[in-house]
Amino acid sequence: MRRGLIEQEIYEQAIQLFAERGFAGTNFQDIADAVGLTRPALYHYVSSKEDLLARLVAENTQDAATSIRAIAQREDMDAVEKIHQIVRANVRRQGEHSARFQLLVRSEASLPESVAATHFESRRMVLRALTAVVEEGITARAFRPMDARVAALGLLGMTNWVAWWFRADHGDDLDAISRQLADLAVAGLTAGTDGRGPANSPTSAIKMIRADLLLLEEMLQKE
Amino acid sequence: MRRGLIEQEIYEQAIQLFAERGFAGTNFQDIADAVGLTRPALYHYVSSKEDLLARLVAENTQDAATSIRAIAQREDMDAVEKIHQIVRANVRRQGEHSARFQLLVRSEASLPESVAATHFESRRMVLRALTAVVEEGITARAFRPMDARVAALGLLGMTNWVAWWFRADHGDDLDAISRQLADLAVAGLTAGTDGRGPANSPTSAIKMIRADLLLLEEMLQKE
Repeated sequence: MRRGLIEQEIYEQAIQLFAERGFAGTNFQDIADAVGLTRPALYHYVSSKEDLLARLVAENTQDAATSIRAIAQREDMDAVEKIHQIVRANVRRQGEHSARFQLLVRSEASLPESVAATHFESRRMVLRALTAVVEEGITARAFRPMDARVAALGLLGMTNWVAWWFRADHGDDLDAISRQLADLAVAGLTAGTDGRGPANSPTSAIKMIRADLLLLEEMLQKE
Repeated sequence: MRRGLIEQEIYEQAIQLFAERGFAGTNFQDIADAVGLTRPALYHYVSSKEDLLARLVAENTQDAATSIRAIAQREDMDAVEKIHQIVRANVRRQGEHSARFQLLVRSEASLPESVAATHFESRRMVLRALTAVVEEGITARAFRPMDARVAALGLLGMTNWVAWWFRADHGDDLDAISRQLADLAVAGLTAGTDGRGPANSPTSAIKMIRADLLLLEEMLQKE
């Protein structure tokens, strides 16, 4: 078996044990037993259980943060598209790796210091990036005025919670769910702006004003 | 000290221990030590640690379910008002009892059978009640067509997640947050219905149709 494959197997077994017994409740010997290696042989591949946790944080919290920030900073998309993409990506991530995300959330209070720093910095990065997109939308008048941080936390809750209810084996369709939640998020932010978004040209602005005036005129006449 | 006060103190200390060490990692002796009672004296007030967990479920999951269902079934409110009230109540609950809610979510896999039944039945009741309200809104054309269960789970995520980020000691304003998240939820569901809600009389329906026709006519002429 190639080294990479063995390391992957060790990682998977360790995550499973952490999920079942907690990080503190799992020792190096438990991991060796689960993989069928002796303790010294296990040391050949990983130097500590903290290393395994560090990889979990890198592949989940940190990866999520990097990808959300990349979407947030794109200049070829408006805030509506960014929210849609971020929510969809986050829902897919939670649905596909629900056990890992639950484990991380459950372990937050007991993460070893080295890993905790990366984990919490990544979580802050996610919140900052999403808050910035909401602010961008408010400034562009695509979203109505609101507390951008609270809205960002609300959307993160909507997507993170997927890890606690999504069940592929019960027929849940992750793609359909990610689209619906993204629509719900965008609709929640854009409502009150008539859902039309800002005019993107003088012609479309004139068109919108004319329609509004006609509507107003008509309404006053009928009163 | 009155019996009720002692029981309350035992309960608070036990919840604290469960939160720190997990339910499985806390024994009856630990609770006795924390309250400063002997084991036999503790038995005088509570018969087992399961009893304390049962109270936690009763005062949190079960209570939440009963109150959400009561709002869902009211006949003097429409779906918009119900969603607003349910979201606000749930956000306040999560903000005020965040440690307890986190503990329950973390302990779900290890709840003793007797308590688990009530807990999961209550969680199902919450989802059923909220899904029914979303369906009610879709039928009344106040909400746009969507998968009501997924929407309900999205809203629950938005409100439940509050337990993981709300910090009264950092100046978070629970009342303002509960209002903003309720607005976000309602906006997310109603968008695409023009935010006007359903017509409430033949006259208003005719008025809305006439306005839409005029708008349509105008838009076609300008194309």
